[in-house]
This record gives sequence, C-alpha cells and structure tokens, in this order.
Amino acid sequence: MKNPQMDSDKNQEVDTNLIQGDLNVDALNLNFRHKVKGEDLVIAVAQDHESSEVLMVAFMNRESLQKTLETGKAHYWSTSRQKPWFKGESSGHVQEVMEIFTDCDKDAVLLKVKQTGAACHEGYFSCFFREISPVTPNSDKKNRRYKLEIVKEKVFEPEKVYGEK
Amino acid sequence: MKNPQMDSDKNQEVDTNLIQGDLNVDALNLNFRHKVKGEDLVIAVAQDHESSEVLMVAFMNRESLQKTLETGKAHYWSTSRQKPWFKGESSGHVQEVMEIFTDCDKDAVLLKVKQTGAACHEGYFSCFFREISPVTPNSDKKNRRYKLEIVKEKVFEPEKVYGEK
Repeated sequence: MKNPQMDSDKNQEVDTNLIQGDLNVDALNLNFRHKVKGEDLVIAVAQDHESSEVLMVAFMNRESLQKTLETGKAHYWSTSRQKPWFKGESSGHVQEVMEIFTDCDKDAVLLKVKQTGAACHEGYFSCFFREISPVTPNSDKKNRRYKLEIVKEKVFEPEKVYGEK
Repeated sequence: MKNPQMDSDKNQEVDTNLIQGDLNVDALNLNFRHKVKGEDLVIAVAQDHESSEVLMVAFMNRESLQKTLETGKAHYWSTSRQKPWFKGESSGHVQEVMEIFTDCDKDAVLLKVKQTGAACHEGYFSCFFREISPVTPNSDKKNRRYKLEIVKEKVFEPEKVYGEK
C-alpha cells in the first residue's frame, strides 16, 4: 500500500512504503490522467535550462518518466507511434535533464534541459516557432482575423539530419 | 472550404477563405486533437513574459482560444468542471496575454502572459512548485528512489483569496 506522508517541516512528501517491483516513480503518486489510445500519461513540457525558452510539449507514461530519471536524458511516449520515444535517438538531438518539476495537480511535468542541436524536427530550436497574430490589427477585436507567422530562424535543415523523404 | 496558403517570401500562412459564421481562430487550422470527455482541445502552456518562468499547463477548446484572442486575457477549458474557465474570474489572478505561439504539430499553444497575483490556486506564482529529486542521490541510478520537494515560496494564502472551505 502507498502511504505518502507530508513532512511539513522539511516541505517534503516521501512515500515510506515503496513496494518492491513497482517502478520507483510510483512513489511520487503522479496523476497519469491523460488517456491517449489506452495509455495513461502526464503532459511533459521541456524548457531550455539557460534561456528558459519553451522547447516542446509531449507526453510521458510511467516507464518514460522512470527512464528519464534513470538516464538523465528525456524519454517521452509517442502518441502517434504508440511507443516509447527516446528524444534524439535518430537525430542525436538529445535533451540532458538538469531539473524536473511537477505541478499542483501532478498531471504534468516540467523538464529543464540542455538541448543538443534543436528540439524541433522541422529544424527550429523550439517547436513554438509560429506566432499567432492578427491579420488586421486595427479592426475591432470581435471581427479580427488571425494568421500564423514563422518568427524564428531554422538552426538545421531537416533533410540533412533525418534524410530525404 | 479552407484553403491555407503558404507564402514563403513572407513566412506567413494565411487562410484566404474564411467562412462567415466560423470562429475566426478556425483560419489557423490548429489541431484540437486532445479529447477529454468529448471535448476537442489543444494543450496551453502559460509562461511569464518577463522571467520566462513556466506558470501552468491547461487546455483550450476553439471557443476559449477565440475568447483569449478577442479579450487579451487567458481563457481555458476546465476538463474537471467541463466548462469554459476564465482564468482569474474568482481570484482576480488574470493573465494578460502578450504573445501567443503554436508548435509544429499545431496541437499546443504557448502564451506569454503578464500574471496578476499568482497562477497557482495553491498560492504559488507557478504551479510547478514541486521538484522531483532523488531520496538517495548517491545510490546507483537504477535503484534510486525519488521524492517531491516544495522548492518555491508561497506568494498568497489560498484561504484569503478563495475563502475557507
């Protein structure tokens, strides 16, 4: 049985009753509440540990979080391929994890990472390279129309890293 | 019919055929692929526009994104209450949206916000106030155990903002 205890002096929550055979991350009692194709997941946000630029958003299951903690390299769960995803396995663009946090609901984690190369498979350092901006800035807000605009520079050419399609 | 065009000189994607009656955000062709209790959602990450601290992770449906763009204040979709959620409506802790980005998959948005008060209902500026850290840092990585540790200071007392339970 899990028995999380709150030690308010030390501001720590420690599971004192870890069952042999469980994943060690189970002691954290995270809430893998996001269900995608039958998999129980937390949302994972990766942020550059120096610039604090948000690099990407993905998902982790229990095993990928365990693997991330064990290896110090970001591992996710690919919801499209429905399998574990070691970030950078094919591109070399691994993420060295410097710190990990979780939120109040414990259904999301925040990774502060040292990014090799770039996070985005499209060649940008961050996946958030498109800004949503108004087409007609001065029109009344209710009827304003919006566009996407690429606001970052590419740092590599995807064909050179992943090969031609 | 939607007819997004890529103008590579200007790095802009503009939908030139917005249908009357659609939400204006539909022109962005975001991928509301995250299904929670029948609602189609994108993940939304809010980040402090000055310090770049990641404040929270939530979801938006089409209407909440539209409302966010129209009002300049962050609106989300509450997956627990299954209704629109104007952040700060009861607490006053609104988020003024300075910039919005979307990622390569267009299934997540990143909001750079000016946060009034604090983002977290538990009284912390960011919801990511707990760090995941090893209980036994020097043990071999495979058998290491982990704990959660509160690493931030509260900026308000929730009872004073939300009232006693």
